[in-house]
Amino acid sequence: VVQRSEFLVQLADVRATLVRITGLARDAISDASAALLTVSLEPVPRVRAVRKEISELTAAVERDVYLVLAMQQPVASDLRTVLAALRSGANLDRMGVLASHIATVAERRFPLGAVPDELHAIVTEMAAIAERLILKAGSVVAHLDEAMAAELIADDDAMDALHRQLFFILLTDWPHGVEAAIDLTLISRYYERFADHSAAIGEDVRYLVTGERPPLDSGEDPWFDAVS
Amino acid sequence: VVQRSEFLVQLADVRATLVRITGLARDAISDASAALLTVSLEPVPRVRAVRKEISELTAAVERDVYLVLAMQQPVASDLRTVLAALRSGANLDRMGVLASHIATVAERRFPLGAVPDELHAIVTEMAAIAERLILKAGSVVAHLDEAMAAELIADDDAMDALHRQLFFILLTDWPHGVEAAIDLTLISRYYERFADHSAAIGEDVRYLVTGERPPLDSGEDPWFDAVS
Repeated sequence: VVQRSEFLVQLADVRATLVRITGLARDAISDASAALLTVSLEPVPRVRAVRKEISELTAAVERDVYLVLAMQQPVASDLRTVLAALRSGANLDRMGVLASHIATVAERRFPLGAVPDELHAIVTEMAAIAERLILKAGSVVAHLDEAMAAELIADDDAMDALHRQLFFILLTDWPHGVEAAIDLTLISRYYERFADHSAAIGEDVRYLVTGERPPLDSGEDPWFDAVS
Repeated sequence: VVQRSEFLVQLADVRATLVRITGLARDAISDASAALLTVSLEPVPRVRAVRKEISELTAAVERDVYLVLAMQQPVASDLRTVLAALRSGANLDRMGVLASHIATVAERRFPLGAVPDELHAIVTEMAAIAERLILKAGSVVAHLDEAMAAELIADDDAMDALHRQLFFILLTDWPHGVEAAIDLTLISRYYERFADHSAAIGEDVRYLVTGERPPLDSGEDPWFDAVS
């Protein structure tokens, strides 16, 4: 009984750390988007610092999970919980990296802006969805809410739709040259992958709750849909 | 003793499956590169089929690892081995997806080629490095060769260098328009991420052998270096 209660404490710690990381990932994407959309360098060092903190915390989650597996040897839903924590940590770490890539694009273009006027609304909407997704991912991890986890998976579609719209504009009368097009292609890809990782956290939690892994994804490429 | 030998058999099965998946990932990237570089649709359905097979096999690895953890409750290096297998499976699955994305670009542009003459040599070299990396990853997993795992991590730099070269050409007198630039940006990113996942398999195996996880990565963005 002592061992079981110790396990539950360790698990609660890991979960609290993951929730904290979702907050940091939200800060990172929010600051990166601000740097990009308000053409400011001021948030960039914060993005870098937070991205580093995320990596340190996800590494700590990994170590804790290892210890829990080695010492407690969980089975059934306890085992699923620790494996889901491991996967969610990996997803959150990538989200920090992607936010940092977005900040880098903003920094590289400064004092010019990377996002021309006609794409400002779309990128602003991408940034808003990314923030909403990571906020929801935080709740999903905190409350292990299966219904909200399913929402997270569905919300990813909204980002894909924006990704397609952005490519459509890039391919129709684009007056801003190749460098801007490359920047926007990468920015859009980074936001899209950020959303994918949020959806993956939804899958992780669904797995934890139901024991079911997602169906194999279709491998659909939103860019393909944009032009075919 | 029976349990231990059963564990070793299960582990050998998981490892054999991972080695098999590296072979499939090599087929996938090889066929995808052929579609792209020889401007042919013929390899495309094979890439799709192999990508699906990779996902099925990595899902099977995940199930097997879950069973091993639940039934055998491994500790120490045995635990590291199963966790490394889990991570390598996830890396290989992404590599299949990336190969499939490359095939999709080739398909979308057909009967035109997506790679203009002046970039043919660079993309051919990227394809060659990708194949070499996944071949090496197969050996690393098969023989748990730590020295070769370290090579895999270093080889990733060669791909980053090509990624930078490609961007340099895109930004210098690019006569092929925005759509071609977007295609090349994505192709280059897909090869670069394919190499990252090979390097990550090197890290997985190094962790397995030494128990050490890699230092936190610098978050360096090769595209940033290309233009700054």
